[in-house]
Amino acid sequence: MHPSAEPPLYLKLADKIEEMIGIGMFRPGDRIPSVRQTSIQHQVSVPTVLQAYTLLEDRRLIEARPKSGFYVRSLLTSSLQLPSTSRKVPHAKSLSKFPPLMALVHDVVNPDFVKMGGAHPSAELLPGQKLSRIMASLSRSNTRSAITCDPAPGCSRLRMELSRRSLDWGCYLTPDDFIITNGATEALHVALSAITKPGDTIILESPTHYGVLNILSHLGLRAIAIPASPSEGLDIAATRKALAREKVAAIVVVPNFSNPLGSFMPEANRAELVELAAEHGIPIVEDDVYGDLPFEGERPRCLKALDKTGSVILCGSFSKTLAPGYRVGYVSAGRYHDKIIPIKTALNLCNTPLMALTVAEFLRNGGYEHHLRTMRRIFREQVSRMREALAAALPGEIKITDPKGGFVLWVELPAQVDALVLFHEARKLKISIAPGHLFSPSAEFKNYIRISCGHIWNPRIEQAVATLGELVTAELRSAL
Amino acid sequence: MHPSAEPPLYLKLADKIEEMIGIGMFRPGDRIPSVRQTSIQHQVSVPTVLQAYTLLEDRRLIEARPKSGFYVRSLLTSSLQLPSTSRKVPHAKSLSKFPPLMALVHDVVNPDFVKMGGAHPSAELLPGQKLSRIMASLSRSNTRSAITCDPAPGCSRLRMELSRRSLDWGCYLTPDDFIITNGATEALHVALSAITKPGDTIILESPTHYGVLNILSHLGLRAIAIPASPSEGLDIAATRKALAREKVAAIVVVPNFSNPLGSFMPEANRAELVELAAEHGIPIVEDDVYGDLPFEGERPRCLKALDKTGSVILCGSFSKTLAPGYRVGYVSAGRYHDKIIPIKTALNLCNTPLMALTVAEFLRNGGYEHHLRTMRRIFREQVSRMREALAAALPGEIKITDPKGGFVLWVELPAQVDALVLFHEARKLKISIAPGHLFSPSAEFKNYIRISCGHIWNPRIEQAVATLGELVTAELRSAL
Repeated sequence: MHPSAEPPLYLKLADKIEEMIGIGMFRPGDRIPSVRQTSIQHQVSVPTVLQAYTLLEDRRLIEARPKSGFYVRSLLTSSLQLPSTSRKVPHAKSLSKFPPLMALVHDVVNPDFVKMGGAHPSAELLPGQKLSRIMASLSRSNTRSAITCDPAPGCSRLRMELSRRSLDWGCYLTPDDFIITNGATEALHVALSAITKPGDTIILESPTHYGVLNILSHLGLRAIAIPASPSEGLDIAATRKALAREKVAAIVVVPNFSNPLGSFMPEANRAELVELAAEHGIPIVEDDVYGDLPFEGERPRCLKALDKTGSVILCGSFSKTLAPGYRVGYVSAGRYHDKIIPIKTALNLCNTPLMALTVAEFLRNGGYEHHLRTMRRIFREQVSRMREALAAALPGEIKITDPKGGFVLWVELPAQVDALVLFHEARKLKISIAPGHLFSPSAEFKNYIRISCGHIWNPRIEQAVATLGELVTAELRSAL
Repeated sequence: MHPSAEPPLYLKLADKIEEMIGIGMFRPGDRIPSVRQTSIQHQVSVPTVLQAYTLLEDRRLIEARPKSGFYVRSLLTSSLQLPSTSRKVPHAKSLSKFPPLMALVHDVVNPDFVKMGGAHPSAELLPGQKLSRIMASLSRSNTRSAITCDPAPGCSRLRMELSRRSLDWGCYLTPDDFIITNGATEALHVALSAITKPGDTIILESPTHYGVLNILSHLGLRAIAIPASPSEGLDIAATRKALAREKVAAIVVVPNFSNPLGSFMPEANRAELVELAAEHGIPIVEDDVYGDLPFEGERPRCLKALDKTGSVILCGSFSKTLAPGYRVGYVSAGRYHDKIIPIKTALNLCNTPLMALTVAEFLRNGGYEHHLRTMRRIFREQVSRMREALAAALPGEIKITDPKGGFVLWVELPAQVDALVLFHEARKLKISIAPGHLFSPSAEFKNYIRISCGHIWNPRIEQAVATLGELVTAELRSAL
């Protein structure tokens, strides 16, 4: 730019608004005037205002919220730190005393609660009506199939659709590579059941979701909880150390948008992990329930894409994207396939065939990709908004993850806070959060909480976040 | 009757027909002339023929088949012996090598097969259309409930209906006493999982159904297979001996129309068994999947009706009466209830809520009792007809059970027959039967088969039974 030239109008406007934000005229979370209002107020054209706002977005000062307007981003979130990662390689721990927190499970489905606890998508985001129409039609035309058992491996039509989709995962899996399960929980259950015996030790990420810890506890397994970072997930070097030191039966990992960290394992780490497991001759159980929910770009590949020996057992479901209540999951178990069939049979003989047929039909003709695009956009927005709201509401030095997919946040509160106390206090006010205790075998994340952003942002959630802030403040005061 | 008096016409007619059967004019399984035909032929009134036919029925020579006419009963079945019962009290056996015969499971749902293998009711006997209508309507009006998880204990509406029905079982169970499961298989699974650890020993009936043996094998349990008689089921004296000799974790029993024996445990034995278990401080797992299917009289009570200490765990389902594919079962676990909730959660989080809601609505307003009356009548007829057909078709000295409910028969073939060979030979001809090997931990019933009568009698089944006869004959010849 020529030094004497007057800066363009949009730049002057942007600088002016930045100044207004700087001096607190607009505060984090405030809506700034609309494009039209600003155009009138500052006597500039609408395109100029749009250019200015785009620049402010690039400067991470404001953000657009579709159908709502432009908002001042939280100054906090831009400087927010990620939760800390432990560096220790712990020894195996028994899970015999792992506490299943059934209250949490129930609050999640209680309509009276503000649901930030369980990692469930809101019913409003799911294609309930469309699924219901498909199901009614299938049930009329396939009455016999609907009421008859469909033993493991289960619904061939769904396995066909999964085979097609597996190309997007970077694999080529045939319909015969799949077994249909009652959700991903059951997929993990039968996988672990096939490759372990009670007393065996499993390597997993720390923090990890309590669903898998519950399963380990039930199967009488021990766990080495390897530190995972919010950005890259499982620490491969620590995993190597643990494998060198102890006999391990399997590794359980969530490479795509882990729960609760939202981490995404880099390609190089994936290759190293698969190789490391092969060196030790142990299987990897891959939990891919969030794989369909990246915030940006292509659907990421699965770890299974790198599997050359049939030793990666891929587990997934449609509970995060279509219908948790349909209980439709799957496992692609490589060389453990034949071992899992009788286990699934011993568990509950078969799945509800109608639900699998309905999901198969939705995948084929229901516009699943279009639906996913909407979900990804909404989750990205909700996660971003929740981050800001939490950063604004919570006192003290807090750290929050910055996931690239899925819909959960992992929040490190000041060290004096006991998340279990917070959980119970919040429950009294019908606010559901997940206390950090549940996310490791040794209950080490005492001052952490997981916040689900699966529900559409509304004033009740906004109020609940503010209330959480007050509860934490009260806890901090009482700890003085 | 006055000595010189001429015998009444109907008596003369009955004697005449008996003579015709005796000299082979009408052979077992033949239809005798209709009431109208006989009335014309013998020049007697229709009421007289009816009286004669009733008398012949009382003499067990003919039997009425609704909408079809009167048939000559098999002379064989009247003299048929029940399969023999072992008298030994065996030691505990590991089930680690129990073979899950997946081919059998799959043939059962293969439309090309004549299905006498698995114990599934035919789709034609199930209210598929009605269930489908209920489900479509519920799914429209409860879209949110249909797609949302409903964690353990699961569907409160179904638990309410179960509570109402429990009065008919001789219990009074509240909705809070139930946990909804994915079929009775899962009910048995979670029950055994709650009360045992790997290596524990379970007492069960011998023969018993392979579903439960599969579960024991999966859970790493050992079994003492106590001889059961076709009439009274589990031998209580032998159970007492086994309990005195070995440490046992639980007893699994099917008091109402066991599978495969169809036995019905007498009231006195039930009381003794419950007391015996209480003396030893061990729980009883009661499998009641056939309780709704007595051939005559009232719905029998459950063993749980005698339970004073909360130690009987009742397992049931609607897979034998409404829809195997809906996977709706339940467990009422007494003092083990709280232990089972997290186990069900670790297994697969929850059931498909829509299926449970649909069954609840059918129980409430769908005419379940009326439906059961029809099923009971049809199963009684089919079981009777299958007994005769088997007795007529199978060579050598065979023994067949005479169940009072359910829809399976247990057949003892000549000792030289290997039922597993028969199973494979029959499979080649697309006939599914269940080989006796699967019904005990030690594969002792090598010359037994279980025949399901769940499918409506038709010429294909008739032909398949004849073919079975030929296959057994061929096996006997080759054994010479």
